Formats: sequence, C-alpha cells, structure tokens
Amino acid sequence: LSSGEFLPIRRMLNSLPPADVAHLLESTPPKIRAFLWQLIDLETEGDIIQYLNDEVQAQFLREMDAEEVAAIAENLEADDLVDILQQLPDRVIQEVLSSMDHQDRQRVEHILAYDEDTAGGLMNTDTITVRPNITLDVALRYLRRHENLPEMTDHLIVVSRSDEYIGVLPLRRILVSDPSVTIREVMSTDLEAIPASMPDTEVAKLFERHDWVSAPVVDDEGRLVGRITIDDVVDVIRENADHSLLSMAGLDEDEDTFAPVIKAAPRRAMWLGINLITAFIASAVINIFEGTIDKVVALAVLMPIVASMGGVAGTQTLTVVIRGMALGHISKDNSRWLINREVMVGAINGLIWAAVVAVAATLWFDDRTIGVIIAAAMVINLITAALAGALLPMIMDKLKIDPALAGGVALTTVTDVIGFMSFLGLATYFYA
Amino acid sequence: LSSGEFLPIRRMLNSLPPADVAHLLESTPPKIRAFLWQLIDLETEGDIIQYLNDEVQAQFLREMDAEEVAAIAENLEADDLVDILQQLPDRVIQEVLSSMDHQDRQRVEHILAYDEDTAGGLMNTDTITVRPNITLDVALRYLRRHENLPEMTDHLIVVSRSDEYIGVLPLRRILVSDPSVTIREVMSTDLEAIPASMPDTEVAKLFERHDWVSAPVVDDEGRLVGRITIDDVVDVIRENADHSLLSMAGLDEDEDTFAPVIKAAPRRAMWLGINLITAFIASAVINIFEGTIDKVVALAVLMPIVASMGGVAGTQTLTVVIRGMALGHISKDNSRWLINREVMVGAINGLIWAAVVAVAATLWFDDRTIGVIIAAAMVINLITAALAGALLPMIMDKLKIDPALAGGVALTTVTDVIGFMSFLGLATYFYA
Repeated sequence: LSSGEFLPIRRMLNSLPPADVAHLLESTPPKIRAFLWQLIDLETEGDIIQYLNDEVQAQFLREMDAEEVAAIAENLEADDLVDILQQLPDRVIQEVLSSMDHQDRQRVEHILAYDEDTAGGLMNTDTITVRPNITLDVALRYLRRHENLPEMTDHLIVVSRSDEYIGVLPLRRILVSDPSVTIREVMSTDLEAIPASMPDTEVAKLFERHDWVSAPVVDDEGRLVGRITIDDVVDVIRENADHSLLSMAGLDEDEDTFAPVIKAAPRRAMWLGINLITAFIASAVINIFEGTIDKVVALAVLMPIVASMGGVAGTQTLTVVIRGMALGHISKDNSRWLINREVMVGAINGLIWAAVVAVAATLWFDDRTIGVIIAAAMVINLITAALAGALLPMIMDKLKIDPALAGGVALTTVTDVIGFMSFLGLATYFYA
Repeated sequence: LSSGEFLPIRRMLNSLPPADVAHLLESTPPKIRAFLWQLIDLETEGDIIQYLNDEVQAQFLREMDAEEVAAIAENLEADDLVDILQQLPDRVIQEVLSSMDHQDRQRVEHILAYDEDTAGGLMNTDTITVRPNITLDVALRYLRRHENLPEMTDHLIVVSRSDEYIGVLPLRRILVSDPSVTIREVMSTDLEAIPASMPDTEVAKLFERHDWVSAPVVDDEGRLVGRITIDDVVDVIRENADHSLLSMAGLDEDEDTFAPVIKAAPRRAMWLGINLITAFIASAVINIFEGTIDKVVALAVLMPIVASMGGVAGTQTLTVVIRGMALGHISKDNSRWLINREVMVGAINGLIWAAVVAVAATLWFDDRTIGVIIAAAMVINLITAALAGALLPMIMDKLKIDPALAGGVALTTVTDVIGFMSFLGLATYFYA
C-alpha cells in the first residue's frame, strides 16, 4: 500500500473536496471502500468522515482506537464531532474527551449533554456575540480582530451582560448601516431563539417556514448556548423524508446502499418474518372457507383481486395521512373531515371498480352470482381500507408507534383479512 | 364578510407571518379554506401565496383575474413570481407581464425562459455584483448606498466588465479584512458557478455537498444571470423526497392533503385501475391451475403466502435501489455488485423462511409434499423478487420511466405471477 503503485489514487483522494470523497466511499462496495479508506491520510479522514452516513461512519470508527479518533477530532467543529462521538462506546468517548484541551472539551460536553434529536444536539457553539449598547463602529473593529468568522455566520447574536439572548444583527444590515449608530438601534428582535430542548423536526419546520440560514439556541433561562445552521437542518429534512420512504419497506434511513450480505440479510429477514405472520393470518381466514372454495374453485382464482385492491387503496390513504402528519397538516379538528373524505373516495372508487370487476367476473365464469359477490366484497374492502388507512396512523401516533414503519403491515393485515372474509363469506352464504 | 363579526379572524390572518398563514390554509378543508382566503387582504395575499404548495396555489389563482395577479406580483421576488406564473394560462401570464414596469418584466421574462426544473428556473436575479479591481473600502461605500441587501446574501459576486463570473467575496470576509486591499486579493475563486441549464436535483446535490447558502448561476457564455439561494433548494430537496414516497402510492408530490372528493377520487381511481390489471393477470395465472386447486384445496389457502412474501422482499430491494439512485450512489460500475448482493440476500432469506413455512404447512395440512412445494416456490420467488427489484428500476431509469411511480406495480406483477406460477406449477407436477 505504501508503494508508489497507488500514488495517483492516493493523491486524488487526498485532494478532492472531502464531501466528494465521502460520496465516492458511500458509492463503493465494502472491499473497495475499505481499500480506499486506507489510502486516505489521517489528517483528511476527519474532514471526510463527517460527511458519511451514520452506518458507513460507524464502520470506519469501529476500526479506530481512541487516539486516532482524537487525531481526527482536532479538525472538526464541535457539532460534527459530537455526531461522530455518539456512535462510539462510552469508554472511547471518555478517552477522546480527555485528550482534548479544556475549552474544546467543555464545548463538546456541552452539546453531548443534549439529546441527539433536539436543537441542543444539533447546535454548534461557534457563536459571535455582541452587546446591544456598543456602536457598529466598535463592532466592526471587534470583528476585524478575527482572522475569519465561522461558516454560515449570517448575523451577530446580541446578548445581555449575563448572556441572555436579545436579538440578532444581520451582517447584511451592518454593511448598509451608518457605523455610528448603536447595535440596539439596528438589531432585529423578531427572530425568537430556539429552546435547546425543541425536537429537531420542529427546528426543521421553523427553518423551512422562515427561510433562516442560522438561528440562536437558548437554555431554559433564555441564555444563549449555541446556534443551528441550515446545513445541519438540511440533513434533518433529508433524514426525515428518507425515514418515511425506507420505513415503509422496513428499512432504516441510515441504510448503507452497499451494506454487505451478512449485514443486509438479517435486517431484511426480520421484516419478512413479520410479514409472514400477516400472510399466515390471511391464510387462516381462507382456510375457514375451504369447503366453499372446494365447491366453487373460481373463488380461488378471483380472491386475490379483492385483497390486493384493498391493499392498494389503503396504502394510498395511509401515505396521504402519514405525509399530512409529517407536514403538520393534520390535527384533531380536521381529522374527522379527512376520514370522511377518504371513506367517500373509497366508496366511490369501490363502486366504480366493483362494477368493472363484476362484469368481467360474470363474463369470465359465466356466473352472475360470482359477479355480485365480488362487487359487494370490493366495496366493503375499499371502504374498510380507507378507514384503516386513515385511522391506523392516527392511533399509532397517539401510542407513539411509528406509523411509517408499522402502518403498512397493519394495513395489509386488515385489507387481507376483510378482503378474503367478505368475498368468501358472501360466497359461502350464496353457494351454501 | 365585511361586517365586524369576523374582524378578529381577519386581523389575525393579516398579522401572522405569511408562512404560518400558508400552513394554516394548507391544514384546512376546502370550505373553511376558501372562507379564510376571502378574509385576507389583497396586499398580503402575495406574501402568503408563495408559501402554498402548487395544488393549493393553483386553486386560489384560478379564481383571480390578471389584474389581481398583477397586484399580488408587486410584492414578490422575481423567482417566486415565476413559480406562480407557471401555474397560469399563457394569456394571463401575458396580461400580468404587460402590467409590470420594464425592468421587473425583463427580470421575470429572463427566468421564465428557463425550464422550471433547471437552475435557471430556480434562480433569482437579485445579485449584488462588484469588480475585482476595486478596494474593499470602495465596495463598502457602494454597499452603504443600498437601503438593504437581498435576503440570503452571504457574498458579493465578482464579475468582469462584460459580466463574466469570476468569484465570490463572502460578507464574512469583508468584515475581517483590511479595507485597503482590493477585492481580487480577498475574493474566493473556488466556488464554481452553476450553469443555468443544470437540473434542479443536481443543484440540490451541490448545495448539500458543499454547504452553500447561495451560489451564482451563469449562462453558456459564463456570464452571470442570477443566483440560487438555499431556501429554494430546500424546497427542491423536500419535493424530491416527497416524490419518491408519494409516487410509490401513485400520488403526486403536490398533493393537497385536503383535496375535495371530486379531485381526490378520479386521481386515485386511475391508480386502482392500473393495479386491477395486474390483479387480473395474477388471477389468469391462478386460473391455469384451476384443476389442481380443485384437487388440493389447501393450495388456495397457502398460495397468497408465496406471492406476498415475494412482494415484500422485492419492495425492499426496489426501495434500496431507488433511493441509491436518488442519492447518486449507483452507477454502471457497482450495479452488478448490488444485483449480486440482492440475489444473495434473497436466496438466504428465501431459504430461512422457506424452511419455516415448509414445517408450518406440513404440520397444518399433514402433508409433506405441500411443505416441499411451498418451500421451493418461496425460494424461487424471493430470488426472482430480488432480481426484479434491482433490475426494474435500473431499466426504467434508462427508458426514462420514473421507477418510483412504475416500479412498485411492475414488481408486484412479477412477484404475483412468479409466485403463483411456481407454487401452483410445482403442485400440478407433484399432484397430477
């Protein structure tokens, strides 16, 4: 490895922008990925590792000792370092912390104290603060003493003598204002600071709604503790959106696209096992009506249609409701309207497609009874599907169960059971 | 309405932040929504309408005449106005444009010329530009002549005499630099400008990867034509993520959570119709083996298990691949590895659950043959599901078919057909 053979690759990896190298690593299968990682210099590893998704990050971290992590830590901002530390065992975290200088260590411990999914866990501590009673001219001279300002600094944060948050002074405004005025006169107090305990999804909504680049974070006493920047919020938005999509297939939002078989197989196996249980429940329902199927075998041919149409219609409702909940559109006041709408849509579409299926089944098996039965079963199942698709996520949300994860399986169980039960039950009544 | 009765509501609607009012409107059923909209003053309508999702926006715009749209247009930034105009018929667009003053009109026409889904369609024209040869002091005096700088201005854009893009000068750097140096000395030329024709998803990737707040946009000749800001990029990210989730249920990412029945029903009906076709295909396959089912009715009881497990496993693969493609992880070089991995995972999980199902089926029906048959069918279907789940989106992507929309239906068709065919086919062989 240290020979000259791989020098061009090594040189490329260490000169590309770290985010691009991270993307390259995420896009490569395990063996090549491990090989490329070895070609990267320790100094640049820190820059790159912060851009990797959690699962890939954990892979590399697992093979590092505390000393190596500490070496990487030096180049990282406090919030990015905390993200990485949270993946490590407590023992390693302590070792890394003890290798840091006092000030850095305090900063990191400060963020580590907050839950990962809160504003406190998302924030950075690199705030530039000023007092309200100084003039812009004084502030400008103070700024000029810095070599540079932290990335994404779009305003100075105005605080009281005891560090209480007062307001912000946008850099844009400093540049167009008369230097002799005081900060109090030009600062803006509209921007309400974010409490450190606010969930990160709420933080993301605020950023989206108010088009912020950065926002101050305060503790329970209103004292400034840090700031959140849009780049970290974008990650939250992306992760939440991915979560909905991937959960529906029983996958994790940190899923490594190129996870090896030994990792991917057990994770998926569990999901298949859960679905197998619902499949057996459906089979048990069919089994009740074995006798009827034995008499009219056409029922076996047609029964999947009723179940699958219910599943499709229910999934549509479920998706609309889960997304509406994620966007904060759905509340107690409007959920009744929404449920009504879904049932109406289910009934109308049930009737339309029931008519089509009835004609098709009647012609196919030359049997008008089977047409009537399948039509009735479809209407019943599509209305049930709409009800289940709307109610299940609402109930799960109350019970703190993730509807994106559990909603689909629960829904299919309902639509399969009701689909087979109504179709075969009606058939038993008519043909028995 | 103009009576005093609704004055408190009216006052509230016209004093809340526009983004919050937009969210409130999106969260209300049609009738109340229309009523609330009437209480909003024409001057604030413009501020609010830009925050609404496309479908709700279109609803309100449809009821406005060109004059009203023109009145709203006055308060909007060029890029937000263009987003709104794109929803209107050409005739109205022309009327609105002709009511604008020359400069504004030119700006808007400039953006309208680009496709909605490109950097050009996403950009705004409110750039603050400077020449490289002036000193910071001169630049500062020039800035002070502005009353304020546009939102999200995090740098000045450095251009040549003929408006060619050269680099950017971050405000952060202006504030910490000696005023006597020239812009050329402190500007940064690392940031490559975005070509106006770049697709918006690519733009979003660049912003995410490089943590930009804003970035310059250039035409084919490298001349500055505008800038893109992170708030609009966040919308792109959100919409793309929503697109994957909603397409899988045949829904649109602009879907209004509270769309009335007459709008929601036909849209969903179409999707159900498409799925009905695949359900009939599956039924046709079952129908081939009617005779076998007639002999061994237990087959009818167990057959949904094989099909549904294939569907679940295939959906997992499909989701991983679609997301990997969205993140730009998957290329020609690594797709073979990915397909292999998926087939391996499918085979392993197929074998594990086939064993469980075989034992369960054997005990249930006291028939060892049926256990062997269902196990074999499950392994076949799970391997097929993995292959289809990986290959279908890759093929669709090449054919410019949206895999998020069409992938699920196509996959279920495959797993249903292969599931029923292998299970009932093997049964016919063994029991005939």
